Amino acid sequence: MNFEYYNPTRIVFGEGKIAELNRLVPADAKVMVLYGGGSAERNGTLAEVREALGNRVVVEFGGIEPNPEYETLLRAVAEVQAHKVDFLLAVGGGSVIDGTKFIAAAAEIEEDPWQILLKRGANIQRALPLATVLTIPATGSEMNSGGVITRWEKKAKLSFGNPLLYPKFSILDPQKTLTLPERQMVNGVVDAFVHVIEQYLTYPSGAQVQDAYAEALLRILIEDAPKLLAEPKNMMLRENIMWAATMALNGLIGAGAVQDWSVHAIGHELTALYGIDHARTLALVLPGLWKVRREAKAEKLLQYATNVWQLRDGSEDERIDQAIANTEDFFNALGVGTRLSDYQLDAQVADTVAMQLTEHGLTKLGEHGDITPDVAREILLTRV
Amino acid sequence: MNFEYYNPTRIVFGEGKIAELNRLVPADAKVMVLYGGGSAERNGTLAEVREALGNRVVVEFGGIEPNPEYETLLRAVAEVQAHKVDFLLAVGGGSVIDGTKFIAAAAEIEEDPWQILLKRGANIQRALPLATVLTIPATGSEMNSGGVITRWEKKAKLSFGNPLLYPKFSILDPQKTLTLPERQMVNGVVDAFVHVIEQYLTYPSGAQVQDAYAEALLRILIEDAPKLLAEPKNMMLRENIMWAATMALNGLIGAGAVQDWSVHAIGHELTALYGIDHARTLALVLPGLWKVRREAKAEKLLQYATNVWQLRDGSEDERIDQAIANTEDFFNALGVGTRLSDYQLDAQVADTVAMQLTEHGLTKLGEHGDITPDVAREILLTRV
Repeated sequence: MNFEYYNPTRIVFGEGKIAELNRLVPADAKVMVLYGGGSAERNGTLAEVREALGNRVVVEFGGIEPNPEYETLLRAVAEVQAHKVDFLLAVGGGSVIDGTKFIAAAAEIEEDPWQILLKRGANIQRALPLATVLTIPATGSEMNSGGVITRWEKKAKLSFGNPLLYPKFSILDPQKTLTLPERQMVNGVVDAFVHVIEQYLTYPSGAQVQDAYAEALLRILIEDAPKLLAEPKNMMLRENIMWAATMALNGLIGAGAVQDWSVHAIGHELTALYGIDHARTLALVLPGLWKVRREAKAEKLLQYATNVWQLRDGSEDERIDQAIANTEDFFNALGVGTRLSDYQLDAQVADTVAMQLTEHGLTKLGEHGDITPDVAREILLTRV
Repeated sequence: MNFEYYNPTRIVFGEGKIAELNRLVPADAKVMVLYGGGSAERNGTLAEVREALGNRVVVEFGGIEPNPEYETLLRAVAEVQAHKVDFLLAVGGGSVIDGTKFIAAAAEIEEDPWQILLKRGANIQRALPLATVLTIPATGSEMNSGGVITRWEKKAKLSFGNPLLYPKFSILDPQKTLTLPERQMVNGVVDAFVHVIEQYLTYPSGAQVQDAYAEALLRILIEDAPKLLAEPKNMMLRENIMWAATMALNGLIGAGAVQDWSVHAIGHELTALYGIDHARTLALVLPGLWKVRREAKAEKLLQYATNVWQLRDGSEDERIDQAIANTEDFFNALGVGTRLSDYQLDAQVADTVAMQLTEHGLTKLGEHGDITPDVAREILLTRV
């Protein structure tokens, strides 16, 4: 076990914590507040932010899309420069935060900002300081240093990361999730769930703390998400889901662990091609990956069956089958489809995605580097 | 659930990582290397440190005791000033690291350094940067901002903390634990175990992530420690115990959780009075605390019985009894006594400790503030 773990983001968790912006943001900062659609305005979150920051806000930039779009973010960079902004505050979910990270780097880079995505962030030397007010528990972007940007023109959805992009702080107020549509809350749960899986369900490496933490997060999401659909005002459930989603991708369960990430790579192509919600692409791909890679992942699938689903009866094969079926049932019970037909797609998709993966150079995915575009095709064909 | 979590310490984990000091410490730093007894010299750790740092080392300071002594640390502060040291590197376990944190603060404070302990660190405005090479998995000091200092002259063992005292980085090389005497390895396990318990076994607060992480750490320590006594060269066990001990007190399981810490407060008096190893005082006090506070802690004791010891049969009372007995058996099987007689002490100790707690103003301990010196006496009387 060899790893480096470093995460300097300050988490400020709890009801009413937006008022703390006044303490957390330097008094002389020139702040750009970034947000997505109109929900942060409608539900009063932006008003709270404006009140806490006062005249530190020199410009606001709204309209960052789900799957934040490269061209939109470049417009924000121009505004940053025009207003001499020196602090970025993202108010929203993973898309707004990822977009803000890209802006923080693009505003300070000498070369063409597109190079940030081609080089996955390795060329970032400086970045504006950024912080977040999280409104959608899902991606974990509020406590990590990475992001994913889409450029529709190139049908590309590319990730980047750099330690300079850790938020200085993130405010997590579970009350702010109360106005989220059920669909977004559910997407967040599925996204967090698959983040954990990508860092856990590979092959045994003896990392007991990381494994046990991953299993804990999975159990919490499995237990709490259906309860939340039944009791949407239950704040204890919202608190735990919010914190679990942050912990799912803040580097800790992944430190020294063998990682997969092929579900995300295939899912990104589905979003870029057909506009399917990110989380739903993951729920679609994951059961297929497990069916096709069942043998290579057998030991960890069995551990998952035992420690997450408490399956102890039947043969090892039966328990693995049951764990895969339970996972699919879990997604379906949240209203998330796990078949191509649920998204009005058919078997042809498999070829198209395989071609796109090849085009994007994503030809050796997974923990063994053996998820080729052909294997991805096979995975998607199980989803018909 | 309301909390702030911030932990900027970089963890560099794995075999041979001491060589990374060359990258991690600024090239122009004037480093003091601090250590304890002669073991870091004898087992070659100091030689590795010196080689990696080269002429950055301007002075070494050895001889920091277990339960680091105030007067010793003041001598180090004088050396820091004489050599214009600007970076402290602790090579050792919790005592060396805690002592180094105190030195980092004392070297920069205007008032009498004793005020740091009287004010528990709240008066620290600046501190020298510090980092650690951990050789004993136990206290978690390598990834937190607190410490405990002893002043024998006053029979006082006092804690302090300040966010300025987070190590910049900590190198955790599990190989370095191979030369530890079994007694120290065992003490480390018990110390980490009780750190988790102090942040977990109070009353239910609905913090599911924190609870599940705490339970995971307890299960790992319970499973791995006896195995390590049987197979002392098993590196996988050493890796997991080392990382679990760090995670036990880095703020994460305690964020937003109800905390106790009365076991430590009572234990510190036993160490200050009789020189008993810190971890052993904890093993002695804990079962007594649970017997005396069984009712107030019943819900969490039952959760502990279920989730940590997998006890599902029998009445609730029986399961709680069994969990307490299992815990004591766990300590005893590691060779750690849980009775006063194991330390050649008798019932009189109860009165003496109660008096010392009163003298140190520690009269309202525990999660409800109702562990008075009288209750502490009662706890110790169960340990005869």
